Amino acid sequence: MSLTLYDASIPVYLHMLRNLAALLDKAEAHAKANGTALSELMEARLAPDMHSLIGQVQLASDAAKGGAARLSGQTPPSMPDTEASYDELKARIAKTIAFVETITPEQVNGDEDRIIELPTPTRTLTFTAKDFVLKFSLPNFFFHVTTAYGLLRHKGAPIGKLDFLVGGAVPV
Amino acid sequence: MSLTLYDASIPVYLHMLRNLAALLDKAEAHAKANGTALSELMEARLAPDMHSLIGQVQLASDAAKGGAARLSGQTPPSMPDTEASYDELKARIAKTIAFVETITPEQVNGDEDRIIELPTPTRTLTFTAKDFVLKFSLPNFFFHVTTAYGLLRHKGAPIGKLDFLVGGAVPV
Repeated sequence: MSLTLYDASIPVYLHMLRNLAALLDKAEAHAKANGTALSELMEARLAPDMHSLIGQVQLASDAAKGGAARLSGQTPPSMPDTEASYDELKARIAKTIAFVETITPEQVNGDEDRIIELPTPTRTLTFTAKDFVLKFSLPNFFFHVTTAYGLLRHKGAPIGKLDFLVGGAVPV
Repeated sequence: MSLTLYDASIPVYLHMLRNLAALLDKAEAHAKANGTALSELMEARLAPDMHSLIGQVQLASDAAKGGAARLSGQTPPSMPDTEASYDELKARIAKTIAFVETITPEQVNGDEDRIIELPTPTRTLTFTAKDFVLKFSLPNFFFHVTTAYGLLRHKGAPIGKLDFLVGGAVPV
């Protein structure tokens, strides 16, 4: 027996998007209890030329909905990166989860060596579906979820690795 | 057709460990060109109670060798976290790669629903092999590689997302 492309992509996006939402909730509660403006969290960045928390959440959303769409042969829903409040940022995650949840195993599974093309500003990257998931989409997706976590920690949020790994919903 | 447990674990660990080594090399060259002490990179952390770069590299190594060992039914090689220089940190990654490279598909593949137990200080976590890879080991491994990247960026290293995703070896 083995895994499917669906196993390695859709449930992983959903698991980590839900954990990301729980991380944002915990950081919000802490900021409100301490009189910290949520904008301070939203604008935080690790280096001047890195994306802020807003950008990290948008890019985590893009990685999940873009990956889910490419793997299932659909066009991802447009989300125009206009989030300007913490509530809008949380809504972005919820909208992304709602789309990814619609994807079925039947839409994703099939030849794991089929070609997936990913246009970039400078050239088109070409992957097998397997490599697209394991060597591009998941690393990119985890990159943005982890960087969002790092920004919240950098700003003092009382969150820990288990929040990142298993979220608020699973007792450990 | 579908993926194997081996596909979803061993080549992913190796891909990202090699990218991490390339990130450390680029940051080292930049630090040396700018007269920055390598210890400043090694001791960097995003929050006072988070691990330093040394710890992030050690934990990325632990995640990869521990995951590879558990999936293949072996005891991971002991690496006692004594790295005190940048060269020793790079050697830790090289030693980890050397171990993970010895793991074969035959050692890893089999029932993806077999039970893997992971003792922690407070309780033993129980996973199917599939969930161990996709919902614990890879998230944890990517967490530490990404946080190492974030620390290097935070300290001004001239690295970018493509270094993280495809490393120094793959032209993009």
